[in-house]
Amino acid sequence: MSKLVVVALGGNALLRSNQKGTYQEQIANVTETCQALVDFLKRGNRLIIGHGNGPQVGNVMLQHEAGQKIFELPSMPMDYCVSETQGSIGYLIELGFKKVLAQENIDRNVVTLITQVVVDKNDPMFQNPTKPVGPYYTKEEADDYSEQTGAVFHEDPRGRGWRKVVPSPQPIKINNIDIVKTLADAGNIVVTVGGGGIPVVENNGYVSGIEAVIDKDLASSLAAIHVNADAFYILTDVPQAYINFKKENQEALGIITVAQAKQYLADGQFTEGSMAPKMRAAIKFVEATGKEAVITDATTLSDENGGTRIIA
Amino acid sequence: MSKLVVVALGGNALLRSNQKGTYQEQIANVTETCQALVDFLKRGNRLIIGHGNGPQVGNVMLQHEAGQKIFELPSMPMDYCVSETQGSIGYLIELGFKKVLAQENIDRNVVTLITQVVVDKNDPMFQNPTKPVGPYYTKEEADDYSEQTGAVFHEDPRGRGWRKVVPSPQPIKINNIDIVKTLADAGNIVVTVGGGGIPVVENNGYVSGIEAVIDKDLASSLAAIHVNADAFYILTDVPQAYINFKKENQEALGIITVAQAKQYLADGQFTEGSMAPKMRAAIKFVEATGKEAVITDATTLSDENGGTRIIA
Repeated sequence: MSKLVVVALGGNALLRSNQKGTYQEQIANVTETCQALVDFLKRGNRLIIGHGNGPQVGNVMLQHEAGQKIFELPSMPMDYCVSETQGSIGYLIELGFKKVLAQENIDRNVVTLITQVVVDKNDPMFQNPTKPVGPYYTKEEADDYSEQTGAVFHEDPRGRGWRKVVPSPQPIKINNIDIVKTLADAGNIVVTVGGGGIPVVENNGYVSGIEAVIDKDLASSLAAIHVNADAFYILTDVPQAYINFKKENQEALGIITVAQAKQYLADGQFTEGSMAPKMRAAIKFVEATGKEAVITDATTLSDENGGTRIIA
Repeated sequence: MSKLVVVALGGNALLRSNQKGTYQEQIANVTETCQALVDFLKRGNRLIIGHGNGPQVGNVMLQHEAGQKIFELPSMPMDYCVSETQGSIGYLIELGFKKVLAQENIDRNVVTLITQVVVDKNDPMFQNPTKPVGPYYTKEEADDYSEQTGAVFHEDPRGRGWRKVVPSPQPIKINNIDIVKTLADAGNIVVTVGGGGIPVVENNGYVSGIEAVIDKDLASSLAAIHVNADAFYILTDVPQAYINFKKENQEALGIITVAQAKQYLADGQFTEGSMAPKMRAAIKFVEATGKEAVITDATTLSDENGGTRIIA
């Protein structure tokens, strides 16, 4: 029986922190990631891909900034920058899958949809921007930039400088999600909610972009809920989630219930900005559907019992 | 009876030559263009939108160049740059339509597909790059850049400097065109072949990007043929095509046959790089389908007998 599976890929599936992110590097990385997903396709599963864009959108913001400095080109807000990365990352994911599909002699289309995700303009996160985006600045540069644009800057906890922070509101609706489901059910591999989706607000049917970043795991979880997926995978760079991380009694988590996951979260077992939001996205999916969510890495993916598996 | 209509928008539908191309300007322009298309929707027609990306991809190339200079970010090839503009322009077209649809109380989805267009790696145009892209350089800069990258540069005929030229091969296949048709037939407004499509070549099922620019009118014409459109519109900045252009005996063309259009082309009546390729794209559609192709501007669009109409 064919399952409908939603997989959220981390931004590092394409652009790794130890790389410059050349065209060839990104294609090699994404092809490796698509290769890790081929077992899903061999089993005849339908597949929807969500993905991050952290490193890519950071580069786009730098390129806009540089283009403004040298060529006086207008810089663009976050929604526009995200839309650019949806185009480029979607294209590279298509190339990666096409290569793997040709190798495995599997006949599937890969299709990328530009995807707006609606947030609530009254979301409390708009009063409290927390998500760091783009380049690091010196204190002086950040103060200047802040004065000019009204942007909020926070100092990086690891001392790398000052960084713009934007709100990270909850995704409440994914535009065209019914089309995503129809296309996936017809056997197409569908790429959607890139970078968490283009953040927009709705007002009496009118739509406009807004300065925000939506968590890509939360957006992918919402997509998985709305298409009624049979399973939701969050692909990251560790094979499992851990409790007592990096302590003597560190323990890798296998199958855990939602109740356990919530308790560990409440106990502060998972790092904010890293495993904690992934666990919350997984919990949302399991609570809404009763189906399983899995947090793991590409290498462990083919092990049907591997990873941290959150169940009802 | 609902018609299936394909409309190719010029790059200036979003970013005009007398503007800097700010976010607000682009949204205002695209909304105006979508407003001009609303009559098609009121008549219940199904709609597929192709679009250019000349000014936008030029800016992206400049931003990459600036990002490399200031931040040492790797510049990306044409296929990647086109994919970025498909994301951003598709998003803005979605915003424009959503606004117009809300005003008119019409319930339609707008969906943008990232679209690869296959070209033949043996296309003779690869031996003869002619399509100018990106910024203008001095002779010295152009020589330097050419030596470093192997890129070919031509001097601008209007004396604005030297510009990189890339091949402009014929589009031979549009990936996912069946999906475009299915979505349009279901009533969705579909945005595709942005910037003429991401140029790729196929080799035994393997797909890879290639340094080229595909004419957006030709790509849109091919899309219109493959979806079996009832009509094909090329939207430009003049209401009609002319013969004896800017001469005493200048004549605006109304309804003309394919045979007449071909004769005018052979006589050199249409400017290369401007009206000539539009006329060729229109002729291709009419010859393949027997249906009508129209070259006109946004203002004239609502006049069902306006524009230059090429018929079998």
